Amino acid sequence: MTQRIPVIENIMGANERLAAVNRSRLDAAGVFSINLMASPGAGKTSLIEHTIRGLMGKLRLAVVDGDIATSIDADRAAAAGATAVQINTGGECHLDAVMLQGALAQLDLNQVDLLLVENVGNLVCPAAFQLGTHQSILIASIPEGDDKPYKYPGMYRGVDALVINKIDLLPYIDFDMDYFRRGVEALNPGLITFPLSCRSGEGVEAWLEWLLAQTAV
Amino acid sequence: MTQRIPVIENIMGANERLAAVNRSRLDAAGVFSINLMASPGAGKTSLIEHTIRGLMGKLRLAVVDGDIATSIDADRAAAAGATAVQINTGGECHLDAVMLQGALAQLDLNQVDLLLVENVGNLVCPAAFQLGTHQSILIASIPEGDDKPYKYPGMYRGVDALVINKIDLLPYIDFDMDYFRRGVEALNPGLITFPLSCRSGEGVEAWLEWLLAQTAV
Repeated sequence: MTQRIPVIENIMGANERLAAVNRSRLDAAGVFSINLMASPGAGKTSLIEHTIRGLMGKLRLAVVDGDIATSIDADRAAAAGATAVQINTGGECHLDAVMLQGALAQLDLNQVDLLLVENVGNLVCPAAFQLGTHQSILIASIPEGDDKPYKYPGMYRGVDALVINKIDLLPYIDFDMDYFRRGVEALNPGLITFPLSCRSGEGVEAWLEWLLAQTAV
Repeated sequence: MTQRIPVIENIMGANERLAAVNRSRLDAAGVFSINLMASPGAGKTSLIEHTIRGLMGKLRLAVVDGDIATSIDADRAAAAGATAVQINTGGECHLDAVMLQGALAQLDLNQVDLLLVENVGNLVCPAAFQLGTHQSILIASIPEGDDKPYKYPGMYRGVDALVINKIDLLPYIDFDMDYFRRGVEALNPGLITFPLSCRSGEGVEAWLEWLLAQTAV
């Protein structure tokens, strides 16, 4: 299990090179970009809807949505007011740099300040593939349970911020926030977190302020 | 994207052959086996705990737990009273037939009537890898949202029964059960479903009765 297969190494190397090309294109156009990752149903699209509505008039937003099938997510992003491109991966369990390259070609990047890339709903595979985005954000959700950092360490280790969604469900679920946070802290010390509820709107403002500050850097 | 890579075809062929070997071993020992798949946190381990406790004295149960890391799930299954084997996949996003083969070697199959295999939490990858188990069961959960059949068709298409967990949260979540069921029906007509709550215990009895009937076949 520890021996690397050369074919895989080559694929990963090619992906990282292409991710660097994507980054250069984004930088040249002055676009700040984030890669949003989460389990299926953790609330990626709902957070994107809040972000579009909350930053409208302050930043020009574009969204790239990755899914196995359908354009449900891009339709929602477009309805919320952003330019949206849907990537259907077929069977693939994650986005990769070549998919993002194809999506970037469909956007006028000079008209974009902030690009939100919604990865395929998956706590494993997306963590292994760089896209060229500036920051990686993980959305955890309360109903997923408090043991997820322990069981999916690769994902929690590699992200720049953590959104903890669906806090409105805390009264109805056995979720030990201290246990959860200890797991996060062990993997990613000092990680900034945003507990919020996309349903009630609680906590969303702090996320928007942070995102706005990141974009201004 | 439609051209198949020979290397991948060979890997899949080898996996299917080994899955057939696993099936023969299980059949020879009179073990009925199911492959439990779901998103992270949908309630696989909780359903397994209910199943162990509910069928104790009626069937001899064993559990094989697949996770990226930790033995949290196998520990829970063992605490509930079953023989449990933990597989840590390292980074792999799914179980495969060779992993199950390794786990079977650690069990005395002649002392087992029902084997529950808990796959890695993932709505994409596990669907593509046969293990050799007799039936595949998907656990959906209410907080994941009602659009999941549409967005993860491969998973919903390939299963023999569907558990809909966390129905106790229905009053607190916008979940259109008709929309969800229409998506399921389009992909997998006539699929048997078990709406239940592992938290309250509601609906668990119907699942146990069905499972008991399957094992008796």
